[in-house]
Parts: sequence; structure tokens; C-alpha cells
Amino acid sequence: MEDVIKAYEIVKNYAHCTPVLTSKSVNAILKADIYFKCENFQKGGAFKFRGASNAVFSLTADDAKRGVVTHSSGNHAAGLALAASIRGIPSYIVMPENAAAIKKKAVEGYGGKITFCKPTLKDREDTLYQVQMRTGAVFIHAYDNIKVICGQGTASLELLDEYPDLDIVTVPVGGGGLLSGTLTYTKGFNDAIKVYGTEPLNADDAFRSLRDKTIYPSVNPNTIADGLRTSLCELTYTIIAAKCDGILTVTEEGIVEAMRIIWERMKILIEPSSAVPIAAMMEHPQYFAGKKVGTIISGGNVDLGDLPFKK
Amino acid sequence: MEDVIKAYEIVKNYAHCTPVLTSKSVNAILKADIYFKCENFQKGGAFKFRGASNAVFSLTADDAKRGVVTHSSGNHAAGLALAASIRGIPSYIVMPENAAAIKKKAVEGYGGKITFCKPTLKDREDTLYQVQMRTGAVFIHAYDNIKVICGQGTASLELLDEYPDLDIVTVPVGGGGLLSGTLTYTKGFNDAIKVYGTEPLNADDAFRSLRDKTIYPSVNPNTIADGLRTSLCELTYTIIAAKCDGILTVTEEGIVEAMRIIWERMKILIEPSSAVPIAAMMEHPQYFAGKKVGTIISGGNVDLGDLPFKK
Repeated sequence: MEDVIKAYEIVKNYAHCTPVLTSKSVNAILKADIYFKCENFQKGGAFKFRGASNAVFSLTADDAKRGVVTHSSGNHAAGLALAASIRGIPSYIVMPENAAAIKKKAVEGYGGKITFCKPTLKDREDTLYQVQMRTGAVFIHAYDNIKVICGQGTASLELLDEYPDLDIVTVPVGGGGLLSGTLTYTKGFNDAIKVYGTEPLNADDAFRSLRDKTIYPSVNPNTIADGLRTSLCELTYTIIAAKCDGILTVTEEGIVEAMRIIWERMKILIEPSSAVPIAAMMEHPQYFAGKKVGTIISGGNVDLGDLPFKK
Repeated sequence: MEDVIKAYEIVKNYAHCTPVLTSKSVNAILKADIYFKCENFQKGGAFKFRGASNAVFSLTADDAKRGVVTHSSGNHAAGLALAASIRGIPSYIVMPENAAAIKKKAVEGYGGKITFCKPTLKDREDTLYQVQMRTGAVFIHAYDNIKVICGQGTASLELLDEYPDLDIVTVPVGGGGLLSGTLTYTKGFNDAIKVYGTEPLNADDAFRSLRDKTIYPSVNPNTIADGLRTSLCELTYTIIAAKCDGILTVTEEGIVEAMRIIWERMKILIEPSSAVPIAAMMEHPQYFAGKKVGTIISGGNVDLGDLPFKK
């Protein structure tokens, strides 16, 4: 918890303190009092900027000069490029060549230098290694990095500062960075607050990993929640296994329905990954009914030309 | 202006004081400082609830008992049904049989009693007359009603209360209720603030009416901005002709592009009508460059199954 508070001393200088929204009509549908911490309004459109800015601004001046490097096809890439540009240092991003055009544009817009790789784990790691050798840049992993995890925890710090009496906090889990940061802060703040991770049934590696006490890789999972296709690492697994109250899984249909409810009722754009905790409230109501539930809306980066809503 | 202030004494008890949002990246694209008064977060998803609640709560107890009636296929119908349900009186809504399913659902959700008519002006007016005769309900026109106009003006009251030093206020114009209310308050508040109406080139009846000093009807205009297909009436024409600094027209492509910029950059849902003033800033930059511009985001009611965004 102290580490998250320390991270906040850095992060608060660069990140937005995002609003916490509520909606009577969504509460009526989900039969709970829900507090939406809107990281879709964060810089770069996702909570990832918090972890990235903590990592980037924690570097010594000497390390920072060499720049930062990562592999990511999503929000971490944009968050890191933006944090690096604010510090005035180079960022090198390894992206699969089939990454969405909108994600490439975002990274380039923040001044990130992209190197494309084939969409395989091996080529991604090889390419990263080459870029790192060539540039000497510091590798900032999307979640296997304690500075990143503590940065992500600052979202729940702000949430609980505003609403200290929540019964539950729930977040999506992909690699586990956001969940680990949320657990670290929330359980330190008040151990009685339940914290649930939520993930697609089609990418339920965290659920199975916790159940079987072994880290399963997530192999090409077929889910619309593109931010949650990654697997836990040793670091995030350890934190989650020690502190988490459970992992709840949801269907693809539930994710799209939850996303539609939030868009229609609250008039805000949330990405599929952010709809996963909402879908969990629909599909596992026994955990949430009548409770005060905080949920972190992880981001709002969607491709408007490729939405899942039917007529 | 005093009438809008009086309306606010009523409206503020029922309507949300909506947030005013800003976006550095949108400002950079449009080269102006823009203050978005977000009526998409208003009850019923649009500013229309302001005018409707002022009209409904201004009725005497005897009049109110008979209920209210209107014809509308859009946001006024939902706003009026909601205001009536809050006062505990019946509302009767005449809607064309081809109205969007989502609009019917919204009106029914607020307890409005729908009577369908053929989608012609004549059948709409005939059906309204029949419902009025049968029920004795009070007709609350969507904009040809001074209480409604003053209610709509309360959006600019809140905006200028928060940002009194705007150079320009710009709103979309359909029937002219929002523009008339905005002019009434804004010009009273500070005559030096420019107020522009904005409308689709494909529905430029207000532009032509002002230019030729005669009210042109809007005949089946082909525009995506479904809230702006109506024509001025004598009342709104008179206010607009006396006070407005100009009507700016925009292309359909501009409306979709502006809508996409706001969705992507600000992560909020705005309906096509609300994108019209943003499109005007893109297509007529000479009026806005470097200025502090307030714009009223009129609403966020869109059919997610029928969006205009291309791959």
C-alpha cells in the first residue's frame, strides 16, 4: 500500500484524476450501487498511462536518457509512448504487424518509434531483444514490473479516497497488472473490501491458474475483450493468489450486452475489457446484489469502424 | 433573460446540472478553446428535458390533472413523458409509425402513452387533435412554446455561470427552441457574446428563412442529424431574426467526421445533431479560430445498431 501511495506522488503530476460516475438506471438494471472510476477519460484513453508514467518518471536521469522499450499491441504501448514523450525521452514500441491501425496511429501520435514483428510470441521477444540491444533502452513490461503495478493501483487510491465505504472493488484481469495494483492498495486500505478479478470465459487462464495453483498461458483466446488476452506472470500471480477474493468469468454475449448498456445509459464509450466487470455483475448477481460496488472502467479505446452492436 | 432565470428556479429541481468538458486534443484539431456543455448526460439523454420540465411544472394543478400531449418522434417525446411521470400526470405522445424502436421504448419506459400516426404532417396534426379532444390534455409543442424555449435556455445559463468569459456560443438549430432559449439568455447576459446557429446544408431552412426574411418549411430533408429536420415557427423565427449573429451550414460528411472526433477523443456518445456545431468549427474556422467557444452538446441518443462510422 505504501508503494502505491509513493507511486501516486509521481502519477498525480501527470495523470488526470478521472471522475467517478454513477447512473440510477444502470443501478436499477444491475441491482447494486455502482461507482464507475472512468479511466476511459484518462490520458491515452486507458489506466495504462498511470503505470507507464510511474515507471518512466521513476527512472534515473542516466537510465531515462537511453529511452524505454516495450512490446504491446494495445493501451500500454500508447501509455508508455505518451509518458516518454512527456519526459522528453525516446520510446521504442514493438508491435505485431497485424495490430489495429488505430493503435499504430495512437503510438505514432505520441512520438513512439514502432518496430513491427510477426504476431508470434517468439518473434515479439526476438524483436524486442534486438531493439533493446540496438538502443540500450530500458524494458518496461506491461505488467511484469512493480513500478507499473503500483502505478495502476493509483486508480483505486483515487476511487477509495472519494468513496471509502465500498463493499466491493472489481476490475478486469488480463496480465494482472491492474488487479495486482488494485489488490495492493485496496486490501491495505481496508481488508474487509472484497476484490474480484473478472475475465472472459474464453480467456479464463487467471481463473484456472488460481484454481490449480499454476500459471497457465493464454493461447490465442477468442474473446472480444482484446485487452485481456494476456496471461499472468509470476509477479502478478503471487499477488493475486495471496489477496484476491475470486475470479469471475463471463460470456462473450454478456460482455457485448454490458457494453451496450453502459454506452446507451451512460453515454460514455467503454472498451470491451471494461465491460467484463459489468457483465460479471449481470452473470453472478449473488456477489453484488444490494452492495456498493466500485469498478474501474479500464479504457475507452475502440475501433468505431468495427463495433459489435447488432441492429 | 429574466424568464430564463425564472425557468431555472423550476428546472434546477428536476434536471441535472450537466458537466462542461474540455479536451486538449480536440482543441488542437479545431484550433479553438472549446467548452462542451454535455446535455447528452441530461435526464432522457438530451436538453429537451429542460424545456419539458419547465412546461410541465408551470401548469396549474387543474391543467396538470388532464395530462400533457405532444407529437414528436424524438427527444422531446421522451423528455415530456419523463417530466410528466415525475409530476405524476399522464402524457400522450403522437409518434409516426416508422419512428425508431429505441425512441418508442424510451417513451414507454417513462410511462408515455403512444398513439401512432402516418408519417405525414397532416396525419400527425389530425391524430394530435383527436387525442387532445379525447383526453383534454394540454398540448406542449416541442419548441413553439415560450415555457419550453425558456427551459432550453437554462443550459446556457449553467454554461455561462461556469464560464462567463466565452467569446462565442454555438448550438444546432432545428425548430429553433434551443437557439431561441440560448439567444434569450446569452444576449441578456452579455450582448458581446456571438451566438451562431448551425444546421445541415441538407436541412438549411433556417439559413434560408433568415436570409429571405420568410419562414421556409423543411420538407423531408435528407440529413443524418435527425433532431434538425423540423422548421422554424413564427415564435422562434422572431427571436432568432432579432438576436442571432448568423446561421452556419455544414456538410453530411462534416457531421460524421465531427461526431467521430468527439467519440474517439472524448470517449462520449453524442448524437449527429450535436456534432453539427463541431462540424461548423471545422468548415467555417474563420469564425472560431483562437476563440473561447461554448457549445451545447444537445444529446446522446443514437441507435447503436445503426452507426455511420466506416472501417
